[in-house]
Amino acid sequence: MKSVNLSEKFDKFSDYWAPRVIAEMNDYYFKLVKVKGKFVWHTHDDTDETFIVLDGELIIEFRDKTITLKKGEMIVIPKGVEHKPAAREECQIMIVEPKGVMNTGDADDQLTAENDVWI
Amino acid sequence: MKSVNLSEKFDKFSDYWAPRVIAEMNDYYFKLVKVKGKFVWHTHDDTDETFIVLDGELIIEFRDKTITLKKGEMIVIPKGVEHKPAAREECQIMIVEPKGVMNTGDADDQLTAENDVWI
Repeated sequence: MKSVNLSEKFDKFSDYWAPRVIAEMNDYYFKLVKVKGKFVWHTHDDTDETFIVLDGELIIEFRDKTITLKKGEMIVIPKGVEHKPAAREECQIMIVEPKGVMNTGDADDQLTAENDVWI
Repeated sequence: MKSVNLSEKFDKFSDYWAPRVIAEMNDYYFKLVKVKGKFVWHTHDDTDETFIVLDGELIIEFRDKTITLKKGEMIVIPKGVEHKPAAREECQIMIVEPKGVMNTGDADDQLTAENDVWI
């Protein structure tokens, strides 16, 4: 058991849309991810998913609206709700979700990242 | 579904050691709490517990060591590990843990807070 410094972890990688695991709590993971540009439409059918914006601005498109999250804001996307994240400039995010969740959910895409990569 | 601004939520309360729920993800809660002074020794026997320090400095005593967390640092305390949080000055924390967890765990204390209080 030890503390985790979020900035130090972000310094360890630079690629986009590739979440890194930094901590586990019961059967959940805390992940950090850098994003820029547009992601793909996808859904997580079995779980809610939490985004906490630690730096920058995250845009999340839903089928009926768009929500913009700034640094210090968070959102929980209910399971089954289709969404498409995007960011104009680099944005740093913490994701909280159960272990085993793929970043692209039900979408099979070139942006599907390797899962369970710890830093 | 809407975004949550952490600073705006912190502005809504001023008491210490009394967590407020700001979001739920599956059967988990995200809570904000302001702390200052010393809490009580306690344990959560059935779950890990996550602290993310959003402002200030959090000191967590364990039976064998003490860990100090600064802004931008987090820790997951494994279930069953006795701990005693403290802060010299006001410290703002996000807690992530399953619904139903009491702040004082197994300890019956005057600092036991009302549970599941949403803001």
